[in-house]
Amino acid sequence: MAQAIHLEAKLKMFSELWSPKIIAAFNGHDVMLVKLRGEFVWHAHPDTDDFFLVLKGNLTIQLRDGEVRLGPGDLYVVPKGIEHRPVAEDEVHLLLIEPFGTPNTGDTATAAVKEPI
Amino acid sequence: MAQAIHLEAKLKMFSELWSPKIIAAFNGHDVMLVKLRGEFVWHAHPDTDDFFLVLKGNLTIQLRDGEVRLGPGDLYVVPKGIEHRPVAEDEVHLLLIEPFGTPNTGDTATAAVKEPI
Repeated sequence: MAQAIHLEAKLKMFSELWSPKIIAAFNGHDVMLVKLRGEFVWHAHPDTDDFFLVLKGNLTIQLRDGEVRLGPGDLYVVPKGIEHRPVAEDEVHLLLIEPFGTPNTGDTATAAVKEPI
Repeated sequence: MAQAIHLEAKLKMFSELWSPKIIAAFNGHDVMLVKLRGEFVWHAHPDTDDFFLVLKGNLTIQLRDGEVRLGPGDLYVVPKGIEHRPVAEDEVHLLLIEPFGTPNTGDTATAAVKEPI
């Protein structure tokens, strides 16, 4: 039987940071939840836009020419090819959408493992 | 300067029902907000999955072999080709993601106009 995906319930199933969990598939994309705290590396995805929706906490997406500050219920799409660095002073919970198999830094050597929950 | 998209603020900008508003673009898809109340028609999208995230209220997605009940913070992806009918007894606010130009019933003759806000 088809069932809704409860984001809160899924978020309670893991506590690791920087480890995206796949919760659904959509048109060749993984829909994922991730928990972050701290600074990521500067990176860009040459072939895909990068979708961020903040569910809890605050996220700053640094760009080479400024920054975007997001709180709960805020959304931002980093266009493909644009360098960015996510930074979260405190823990932040995000919904991400990426094409199947996208490495999360745009560099396969440093890609986090993405696993379903 | 790049700015976050505040979903709550965008939702305050319109009150029409069944009239999706485009708030962002992502990998050839429109990211949209919509307000619904009542029953839609049975339909399927032969070429695209259908992404629903409930922001406020309750939505039932009827399927030919059951139904999916969603509340705030619940997500569901109707696989392409699967017949479904969204039903909302009271007003519900949704985040939708669809490929550019997707008619919302899978039938160009009955497609709602989608406009940016």
